[in-house]
Order: sequence, then C-alpha cells, then structure tokens
Amino acid sequence: MMDDGSFYYVERALEKKDLKVERVSTGIPKLDELIQGGLPKGSVTLVSGPPGSGKSIMCFHFIDAGLRNGERCLYISVDQKIENLLIHANAVGFDFVPAIEKKLLRLAHIDLEKSGAYHEMGEMVLTGDFDRIVLDSLSPFADTPIVLGRSVEFEKLPVVEKLSSYPSDSRPVVRYHVRRIFDFLYSSKATTLVTSELMNGTSGLSRDTVSEFLADGIILLDIDLVMGRRKLTIWKMRGTKHSFKPVDFSITERGIEIK
Amino acid sequence: MMDDGSFYYVERALEKKDLKVERVSTGIPKLDELIQGGLPKGSVTLVSGPPGSGKSIMCFHFIDAGLRNGERCLYISVDQKIENLLIHANAVGFDFVPAIEKKLLRLAHIDLEKSGAYHEMGEMVLTGDFDRIVLDSLSPFADTPIVLGRSVEFEKLPVVEKLSSYPSDSRPVVRYHVRRIFDFLYSSKATTLVTSELMNGTSGLSRDTVSEFLADGIILLDIDLVMGRRKLTIWKMRGTKHSFKPVDFSITERGIEIK
Amino acid sequence: MMDDGSFYYVERALEKKDLKVERVSTGIPKLDELIQGGLPKGSVTLVSGPPGSGKSIMCFHFIDAGLRNGERCLYISVDQKIENLLIHANAVGFDFVPAIEKKLLRLAHIDLEKSGAYHEMGEMVLTGDFDRIVLDSLSPFADTPIVLGRSVEFEKLPVVEKLSSYPSDSRPVVRYHVRRIFDFLYSSKATTLVTSELMNGTSGLSRDTVSEFLADGIILLDIDLVMGRRKLTIWKMRGTKHSFKPVDFSITERGIEIK
Amino acid sequence: MMDDGSFYYVERALEKKDLKVERVSTGIPKLDELIQGGLPKGSVTLVSGPPGSGKSIMCFHFIDAGLRNGERCLYISVDQKIENLLIHANAVGFDFVPAIEKKLLRLAHIDLEKSGAYHEMGEMVLTGDFDRIVLDSLSPFADTPIVLGRSVEFEKLPVVEKLSSYPSDSRPVVRYHVRRIFDFLYSSKATTLVTSELMNGTSGLSRDTVSEFLADGIILLDIDLVMGRRKLTIWKMRGTKHSFKPVDFSITERGIEIK
Amino acid sequence: MMDDGSFYYVERALEKKDLKVERVSTGIPKLDELIQGGLPKGSVTLVSGPPGSGKSIMCFHFIDAGLRNGERCLYISVDQKIENLLIHANAVGFDFVPAIEKKLLRLAHIDLEKSGAYHEMGEMVLTGDFDRIVLDSLSPFADTPIVLGRSVEFEKLPVVEKLSSYPSDSRPVVRYHVRRIFDFLYSSKATTLVTSELMNGTSGLSRDTVSEFLADGIILLDIDLVMGRRKLTIWKMRGTKHSFKPVDFSITERGIEIK
Amino acid sequence: MMDDGSFYYVERALEKKDLKVERVSTGIPKLDELIQGGLPKGSVTLVSGPPGSGKSIMCFHFIDAGLRNGERCLYISVDQKIENLLIHANAVGFDFVPAIEKKLLRLAHIDLEKSGAYHEMGEMVLTGDFDRIVLDSLSPFADTPIVLGRSVEFEKLPVVEKLSSYPSDSRPVVRYHVRRIFDFLYSSKATTLVTSELMNGTSGLSRDTVSEFLADGIILLDIDLVMGRRKLTIWKMRGTKHSFKPVDFSITERGIEIK
Repeated sequence: MMDDGSFYYVERALEKKDLKVERVSTGIPKLDELIQGGLPKGSVTLVSGPPGSGKSIMCFHFIDAGLRNGERCLYISVDQKIENLLIHANAVGFDFVPAIEKKLLRLAHIDLEKSGAYHEMGEMVLTGDFDRIVLDSLSPFADTPIVLGRSVEFEKLPVVEKLSSYPSDSRPVVRYHVRRIFDFLYSSKATTLVTSELMNGTSGLSRDTVSEFLADGIILLDIDLVMGRRKLTIWKMRGTKHSFKPVDFSITERGIEIK
Repeated sequence: MMDDGSFYYVERALEKKDLKVERVSTGIPKLDELIQGGLPKGSVTLVSGPPGSGKSIMCFHFIDAGLRNGERCLYISVDQKIENLLIHANAVGFDFVPAIEKKLLRLAHIDLEKSGAYHEMGEMVLTGDFDRIVLDSLSPFADTPIVLGRSVEFEKLPVVEKLSSYPSDSRPVVRYHVRRIFDFLYSSKATTLVTSELMNGTSGLSRDTVSEFLADGIILLDIDLVMGRRKLTIWKMRGTKHSFKPVDFSITERGIEIK
Repeated sequence: MMDDGSFYYVERALEKKDLKVERVSTGIPKLDELIQGGLPKGSVTLVSGPPGSGKSIMCFHFIDAGLRNGERCLYISVDQKIENLLIHANAVGFDFVPAIEKKLLRLAHIDLEKSGAYHEMGEMVLTGDFDRIVLDSLSPFADTPIVLGRSVEFEKLPVVEKLSSYPSDSRPVVRYHVRRIFDFLYSSKATTLVTSELMNGTSGLSRDTVSEFLADGIILLDIDLVMGRRKLTIWKMRGTKHSFKPVDFSITERGIEIK
Repeated sequence: MMDDGSFYYVERALEKKDLKVERVSTGIPKLDELIQGGLPKGSVTLVSGPPGSGKSIMCFHFIDAGLRNGERCLYISVDQKIENLLIHANAVGFDFVPAIEKKLLRLAHIDLEKSGAYHEMGEMVLTGDFDRIVLDSLSPFADTPIVLGRSVEFEKLPVVEKLSSYPSDSRPVVRYHVRRIFDFLYSSKATTLVTSELMNGTSGLSRDTVSEFLADGIILLDIDLVMGRRKLTIWKMRGTKHSFKPVDFSITERGIEIK
Repeated sequence: MMDDGSFYYVERALEKKDLKVERVSTGIPKLDELIQGGLPKGSVTLVSGPPGSGKSIMCFHFIDAGLRNGERCLYISVDQKIENLLIHANAVGFDFVPAIEKKLLRLAHIDLEKSGAYHEMGEMVLTGDFDRIVLDSLSPFADTPIVLGRSVEFEKLPVVEKLSSYPSDSRPVVRYHVRRIFDFLYSSKATTLVTSELMNGTSGLSRDTVSEFLADGIILLDIDLVMGRRKLTIWKMRGTKHSFKPVDFSITERGIEIK
Repeated sequence: MMDDGSFYYVERALEKKDLKVERVSTGIPKLDELIQGGLPKGSVTLVSGPPGSGKSIMCFHFIDAGLRNGERCLYISVDQKIENLLIHANAVGFDFVPAIEKKLLRLAHIDLEKSGAYHEMGEMVLTGDFDRIVLDSLSPFADTPIVLGRSVEFEKLPVVEKLSSYPSDSRPVVRYHVRRIFDFLYSSKATTLVTSELMNGTSGLSRDTVSEFLADGIILLDIDLVMGRRKLTIWKMRGTKHSFKPVDFSITERGIEIK
C-alpha cells in the first residue's frame, strides 16, 4: 500500500543494513576518545563555528585519517579555491599532493553559479564510491536561489515550481536546499563532515538553523575571546554517548591539538 | 441553528465521550509519576527541544510501551530515513524489528515534497486504527509552501486559494499547517507525541510558536551546557497536576534515564 | 454636523448609559477583592499568558459564576474542540453539562476557515442576549487572512479592498481584525473575557500587541520557572483601583486558587 | 525665489508670531511646576506609555484645566467609544457632561475605516477654533493603509501615488501619516496632547518611532512592576528647563496624583 | 584612462586643495578645545542623538559662531517649521532675526513631499556660496521613497530606474539617499553639521546606520536617565586627535553648557 | 571529467603555486610581530570596525610599507573622495603625493552608481600588475542592486537573471556581490586589505556577515568607550599562528601606534 506514494515503509529497508554502529576515526585521537572511538560509519556530522575557528582544519584531519587507511576521499570546497586550500592545509601540517596524484583524494572546487553544479555534485557523491566526504561549506547552498525549469533539480519535484516564487532566503527554500544535500550524503555509503558558518554573536548551531536537526552529529568549534582560547563541544552524536563538556584545543603547525 | 455553518455546538458532542481522563504510560516510569500516571488518553503532547536533546528517544519509549501492551502504533518520520531511525533506536536499546514484522508497529518515512503526502498521512492516521502515534517532527510541515489547487487540501477549504499568495513562512500559513495536522491527530482516537524543533538560544516552546498553544501537553527537553546536563520540564499538561520543576536525565544504552 | 461621516459625537450617546461602574464577579473571590469587587460590567478584559498558564481555567470560573446567578453565557472556543474543552473543564472541577442542557450556557467551537465565521459570530454575540461572553482565544483571528469580496465583512467597509493586498500578518491587518472583534464585543451588553496567546520569552502583553490597548482590563497569567510557581498580575483595569503586585496561585482539581 | 517650490523661507513668517513662550497648565499642578509653569502654548506634546499607564487620564486633566478657564476643547478618541470614555473619566473624578452640554467640550470618536476620516479631522482641527486638543491615540493612524485617489489626502500630494505601493507599516508610510497629523496640529493655534502606545518591553518613545522627533515635548508614563509603582518622566520639552528625574504618581478617584 | 568612466583618479584633484586641516569653531568653546580648535574646515559632521538631546541647539551655536564672523550661513529644517524653530532658538538664547534681515542667515524649511525638493536643495547648497550649512535632520530623507522619472534625480543616474522597485526602507535606497546628500555637502566649500535621529534604546550611531560611515565626524548627544544628566561624546573626527571620554553638559537659557 | 562544468579539480592547479607562505609587512611593526612577520602574500584580509575606528589609517600604513619597497599599489576608495582621503592621510602622517606622481600609487575613487563600475574595477585589479591593493570599503558593494542585462556582470552568469528579482539586501544578493569581489581579488597576485563597516552595537564581523568567511584574515578594530581606548584583535589569519588577545593602540600624527 502506498509504496509509490509519499510514504516509505520499513519493510523494504530491513535487509539493507545491519543495525550495529561502526566507528570511523576523525583523525584526532583525543576527539575519537570523546565519542566512543569515532564517528558512526555512514553518518553525517556538522562542524559548525565562526570564521577562523578551525572548521577546515578539522576536515583536513578527517581526510588525512582516511588517506592513511587507503580510503577514497572527496573534499568539496565551495568558497576557498583549491590552490589556497592546499596552502592552508600545508601551513597546518597536511600535504595532500601525493594522495591527489595517487587519485585517492579528489579535491574539487564547486562554483554554485554554474547551472549544472547541483547535478554534478549529486552524481559525483553517488557514483564516486567514496569512503569519506567533506563538504566545506554548506552555507552558500542555502543562499542559492532556486532556478526554475533547469539545473537545480536533482530529481523531478512537483513542488519546485511553487518554491521559486518565495524569497530565496525564506526558511522553506533553505530547508529545501539543506534537505536535498543531506539526501545526497545519506544516500552515499561515505562518512561525511559538513561545515557550517556560525555568525559571531548569534544563537543557533548553523547559519541555516535547519541542518543541525538533520545531521547525525554536531561538533561546535568556538573561540572564547575573553579567555583567549579555542573550545570544541560535542553537541549531538546519534547513537553515541558523549559529554557536553567543552574541551580546549589549539591550532599549531600540526593542526588541531586537543589539550 | 447554524450547525452547518462555521460553528459547532456541544449538543451533538455530549454523548460521544466520557469526561473522565484515562492515563497512558509514556514508557518512562519516573516521567509517568510526574504527570499523575501518564499522558491523558487521546491527547496530543508536544515534545520540544534543541538538536540532540533526545526527542526521538522519548518517542521510542512511548512506542515501546505501547508495543508491550499489544497496542497498534504508528511512527511517522519526516527527516530521518527509516534505516537510520532503526540504527538510532538500536543504539539506545530499542529493537523494533519484531514488532514491525508482527505488523504491530508501522514505521513510515514521509516525503513532504511528494504531492500526496498530506492526504496520505491524513488517511493513514484516520483509518489505521492506531492506539499510539508519533509524528517526528512537526517543524518541516510548517515550512512547506501551500500548493494551489491540489494535494495539500484534506477537506475543501474556501480560504486556501487566498492563503497561497502569502509568503510560506508567515504566521497564517504556519498556523494553517499546524492546525490541519492537529485536526488529524485530535480526530484520531490515538494518544500522540509530536516532536518540534527548538532552535538553540531562542525563546518560544516550538519553532512554529503556534503548536504549543494547540497541544494538550508540552514536554521540554533541554541541554544545560554550563552544568553539562540534560533537563526535562513538564511545561503544560491539560487536566493534570504537575510541577514545573525540571528533572535531570541522561541518555544511555537503555534510552532516557530520569535521575 | 458630520454625524453620518466618520465622527461620532457624544450628544447622541449621553442618555444611553449611566456613568457608574457596576461590578461583575470573576468567579474567583480573592481576585474580585483585588479589583474593587469584580470586573466593570460591560467591559472587555484580556486574559493573557503563555501556554499552560491557566487562561481557559480562568474563563471557566467566570462562566461558572454567571451560571450560578442564572445569567446567559456564551463560550466561544477557537482552537480547542468542545469535547476536549469539557474534559479539560471537568478535570479542574467544572461540570458544564447541566447548564448546556438548560440552555443557559452555549458552548461553540468556531472554525475560522469557514467563510461565514465572522458574520455568524457577530450575529450570535449581538442577538444572543448574553450576560457573559468568553472568546478563547483571540490570537487565531489576528492570523486570518482577509478574504476579498465576501464573508469577512460585518459592515460595508470601503477600506477592505485595499487591506487585502497587504501581508496578512502586518500590523494594519492585525489591528483591523482585533478592532472588528472588540467592536462586536463592546456593542454587546455582556461582560467579556478574551484570552490571548503570549509567546514564552517575548515582551508585549498579547501576541497581536494591539488588543492590550483596546481592552478595558488586562490580567496577566505567568509561570515563573525559576521559582516553580504561577503568578497573576492585574496590569490594567479601567475605572478600577488595583495594585500591580503579582499574586501567586495554583491550579488544582478546583481550578485556580489564589494564595 | 522658490517660494512656491518646496522651500519656505523665514521672511514671510517673521511677523506672524512673537518668539516668547507662553505657558498652558496641564491641569496637574505638580507637573506644571516641573516644566516652568506648563506646556508651551501652541506646542504639541506626546504622552507615551504602555497600556494602563494613565495616558487618557492625563488628557482628562488637561481638558479639565481648559474647561475651568472657559477654553474651547476638542477630545478626539480613536479606539475608545465615547460612552466608555465618559464612564472611564467619571471613575477617576471628571464629569465632562456639563461642558459638553455647554458646547465648550467636543468629544468625538473617529472611525479610521471611514473614507472621509482624515479630511474631517483636518477640517475640524483647523476650523473649530479650539484652545486645547487631545488626540487619543496617534498609533492607529500609523497603521492605516493609504488609499489611492481619494479620501486620505488632505492636500494634493504628488508623492502619494508612489507611497501606496509600499507596505503600510514601512517607515515611509508611518512617517507620512505622523507628519500629516502633526501638520494639522501645528497649523492650529491650540495646545495639544497626543497619546502614543508604547509596547511593553520595547525601546523607543512611541510605537511609530517617529512622533517623538516631531513633537515639542514628550511625557513618558511608565509602570515599574518590580517596585509596584507608576512613574512620570519629562523626556523632552522644547524651550523649557526640566529634569529627567522620574517622579512617582498614583491613580486615584481624583485622577493622577504626583507624590 | 577611464576618466570618464566610474573611476576618478587623483591626478586631476591634486592642485585643487591644500592638504592642511583648517579649524572652524563650533560656537561652544569647551567643545572646540576637545577637537584641536574646531571642526575641520569643509568637513561634514554628524550630530546624533535621541529626541530632546539638544541636536538643534548644537546647530544654533554653530550658526551663531558663523554669524559673529560675518560668514554666510544656511539652516535647512526638515521637520520643524521655521516659526517654531525661531521660538525654540530664542528660548535657549539665540536671536537669529537680525541676521535673517541682513541676509547673512538663510533659514529654510524643506517639504520633502514636494517633487522639486531634492533638486532645489542641491541647487541652493551648491550655488549659495555658504560658509556654514546645517541640515536638521537627515533622517526623513532616508525615509523618502524614490519617485521614478522625475524630481528626485540630481544628476542622470542609470541605476535609479532599478532602485525604484525596492522597498523604500531597504538599505540600498537608504544608502542612495544618504550618499546623494553627502555628495551635495562635500561638493560645497561649507563646513556642515547634519543631525540624525537616534532611536532611544537602539544601537548604531544614526537611524540610517550609513551616515556615520560617510561623515568626517560624529558627535553623539545622549541622555543618561539613571544619572539624570546629558552627555556629549566625540565618536569620530577625521584628522583630529580626540578623546572618547563623554563630557557632561546642560541646556540652559544660554544653550549648551559643557561642564 | 567535468572540467568545463561547475567543478574545478586540483590537477590543473598544482604546478601554479608553491605551497609555502611568504610574509608581507602591514607597515605596523608590532602588528607584524603578532602574525609571524606579516600578512600571507596574496591573501585577502578584512579590516573591520565601527566608524572612526581607524580602518583607513591601517590601510595607509599598508600602502606606505609597499611604497617604501617600490611596490605598485592600488587604493580604491568607495565612499571618501580622493581629496578628502589625501587630507585625512596627511593628518595622520602619510604624504602619498610623491608616490602618485611617480605612478607607484594609484588612488581611485569608484562611483558605484555608474554602470561600468564593476567591470572597470575588475579590469584594473586584474591587469594593473599591483603588489598591494586596498578596497575601502566593501560594504557599499553589498548594498548595490543588481542591474539586469548590463553593466554589473563581470562574466556571463546564467543565474544573474534570477537574482534580480530578489530584494537587493537579501543574503543571496549580498553573497553574490561579496564573492564576485573576492574572486577579483584572489585572481590577482596582490596582497589585499578590504575594509568593512561594523555597525556599533551589533554582532558579526562585517556588515555583510559573509565576507568574514571568505577572507583569509580578519583584523578587528574596536573602540572600548567605557575604558576610553582602542583595541585591535587578530580574529583569523589562515596559515598563521596568532593570539586572540586584543592589543591597545592609539591614533596619533604618525598613524596607528600599538602599545
């Protein structure tokens, strides 16, 4: 009944997956210890923080840990150009050039103003057979207007035509974008980190205020200006026991070091 | 007089129901104690909280308690895919697979972008003869634009045509959605839990700021970062004596444990 | 001069009414003491509070006091269905069934999405010869879009056509709705309580931010979570000496009990 | 040069008026003492405060003081009906009926939804030869949409046609309304009090946030809930030395009593 | 290269002006001491403050100082009528009538609703050969909708046509207005004071939040209600050493007196 | 694969640049010490602060340091006219006239209302072979409406046509502008300072709330009114170890002096 409608029942899903949680290292041993050994395999975790808080660096560790295991990795950069990203990674101790040459790591800069961007990203994520994916960052997607009749749709959506008449920064459009991307990512077998801009001095756990509810985990990076130090908080991690206690960390030539 | 108009009088309602309040266990014994033995039978209770606060886990307890009594249960998931939901439930101690196979529990993922979603949900809730229903979560409904001329209407509504020209996140549209869903749920005989997103650092008791006035009860789950602990507050429970005092709880391999 | 225009002068009003204030009991003796014996007869008082603060229960006392005097009462419920309202009333000690059967109390649920709702409500209020009226609650009216050319107008209004092109939650539309309803109520001889939603954590004395200026009185019900207690404050009561000091109260099987 | 354009030069104004400030009693002796004997003659003073703060009662004193001197007075009520206003005045010690019968006081209720309202108000203010005018309150004007091509314009305005396409609660429309009314009032020889709604818990000195800059004086009435008392502050009074120190007052059967 | 485009290079500007800063007295000796002798000649300084803070009075001092030197002065009043302005000035010790009669001072009231207002103001500022100009106040300009095809444009602007479809209180329109006026003022040789409304209880240094970045200087007048005193702060003064320390002042029959 | 689409892969970028970070002096020796010797060569750094905080003066130091090395410099001024900028620079100790005459420094005022502005700026930045660029300030760009079909586009953009129907101060339009400008700047070999308006009393690190995420570095200039002093904070500097500790500075006849 209604399997071709808008409801999906569990009967057809049960055999697909085991219900046990496997762990995937974040590349930061002390962080792994805080979350029962690592991120749940196949999960999507939001890394949220203000500018300069170390979001990209946390992603570098995550990719680096995969590369050491010989896993296939994809790093999608939206705002930073690839040359700058490599310089930035190098300055905090990561040399990704060998892995790129060995085709283990794919480093891609996406231009959201090009009309095929969504489609290509979906195809790459779903067909690329990656073990780890980084999307750095999610926020520009939520600010992209929906273009009618072409390019943005990944699947046929009867509602799209209506959405386009709403202001592009209204919550329905933001939620549409964020859900679409999380759908890509959850359909992949990869474990994923997604960064999100957190405006300094505002509440919420992401700029879009929706992705924190869709993600399996949230790692919050923050800067305590008064104390002059950096803090990492595990805000949410489905299927994982964790503390809410912030831990201090610093950024050095070897990346993030939790104290 | 005016019975076919916009007013409904009590004369035709009196024989339908007894006025006594029956209690339904939440599946968490210490929570039942706080609300005179359980939720009022047939009521709709809002479970509100920020991301990672345990809203889904509270729903797992509620469903589990029904299944132990042999009650028919429906769990409607809007954002989480069913596979992920089962993994998540398993990690906190709930194995719903046997009940699904016995057809006691129906676990359904609803895709709000499909045009028949509202209609199918209404039909399932009203014809499915369920004792317990979970809607996890309400918030995406309030963000769904109203589509003209098809699919969204459950009954004929002369006003709908006008609503569609308002921005989809204006309060009239939000209230329209939330009322529509509460109408479904109140028309069913089932006792219901509805989860609602609560943005971190904002006031209000739900993201939509309307459902807290329509629900019979509100259970607020919160995270006190400073003290590093989780708190549960009974904010409202019609026909029930309760304290406003928050109680501490933790999330373990056996779900929510109130201290 | 100009009597048929937009100005109404006092000459034609002077003989209509005596200028003395008569008092009407709220049904809560200790509250009556705080306001010189009761509400001014014929006045409209706003009962404002967050969800679960006891607004409906205060209305139950008010209706109950009228019924004990043999007064004709009308209770208009907008969000709660009548069956649920009766269960709710019963749980806090009020049995309205006998009065309904004796036709002393009319309990009506209004469906704002029906096109004749405004008209029928106006007619009922003005022709029903009631001594006491409860409107529970006002807030959904302020969220109702104005429909052009039919149903909403109670009198011919040249401005309506223009209003309809404004967003339905702009203040002009809200003020239009609220004034319209207060006009009904002030035109009736009845003493009236009107409940208003107060969003948790916001300022203002009603959700619409207009009705507190139009009402003759404002009773604020609030929940002090830190102290775990309920508070009642008389914020405004025209023609009445009162303190602003909040009084504590509790909700029991006998309704509101002021300490 | 340019006298028929948009600039008005002082040459044609100099003989019209003496530059000395005359004082007009507020009807509250202790308030007069705070502002060098009274309001500047011909000035417009804003009386601003939350609901129930005593704005109308301050206006009653002002009118009463004029009537005692045999001055012609106009009281324009926008939200309160005249019957209710008289009951309200009577409860705080003012009996305006004799003055109305002697045609010294004109008490007018204006219905802003009637199309001629603006025009009639302008005509009455400018031709009525009043010494004192009360406009209670200004706020509903700022919420009135501008109707094209008729009724709202007092003079021919080339800009009106453009204004109408802006949302009616944008600041240009608000400022348009408020300026228009202040133009009426400043063109009259009368000394005027204008009340303004001040939403509880918001900043600003009027709901419209414009009139406080256009008025010659601002008297702020406030309620200090914590201390349970009423406060009056002279915020601004052009051409007048005054303190900003709030003074306590109470409302009794004889109106406002400053302590 | 590109001199007729949108860039203006310094080559053609160098001979026009010496780079030394000359000082112009504010008319308040103790204020001059705080800013190295006075305002930079030819600069535009914003005088910002809540209602009643003394903005116009500071302008009176500035004009008075110019008149004593025989300088040609222009005072443009937007909200206050000229008669009222003269009464106001007189009450704080300034008699401008002789200077008006000697044609040293031009006192002009501008009516922004007249279609030629912008054009006339520009012409007067640029052709009037003034040494000192006061614009009191800037804020109503930012609230004026842009009228298409006529009257508002001072020069031909290809962008204007597009601007008109934006809400008139969006920042692009505000910035357009404010820049246009600052362009007038900077093109004149005069030293200028511009007053700006500062809403009580809001942040920012002007109501428009743009002019504080365009002005060469900012003088903030404020009222400290708790301490019951007035404060003046030099917030910004290009090319001038100054302290941020607020100084107390009072308003007397001789205007502003800094303590 | 997909190299002509919306993705750019690292393969074609690797040979372009070395990954080592070179340092470029800010012209303020004590600031250089705080950031490992200077700004990363080729980076874009945001200088953010409220009005009067010294943003332009920091740019003067940066340009001056380049000129001393014989580097080609470009200073783009958006709000300040060139004559005023030179006067302002002179007052804090910088004489740029000789460098302008030697064609080492190009000082350009851009008029955003001219239709070719974007195009000319892009061309100048990309073809001018500059070592250092200052853009003072970025904020007016974010407030510029997008004009359809001409002038604003630097490259062909299929999305532009859609953007134009969004309000010009919505985040998609702001992000579009800011990204476009950062694209210019990152495509140049120059090291760049970009100033950004920071409204007094608001949170965020730029007025547009986007550029702080796109820039490589953020230097925050602030005014501590309570303590009466100026503070500089390095908020972010990619590839650079730095403290978050604010340092005090003053503005003298020799510009910024860090204590």
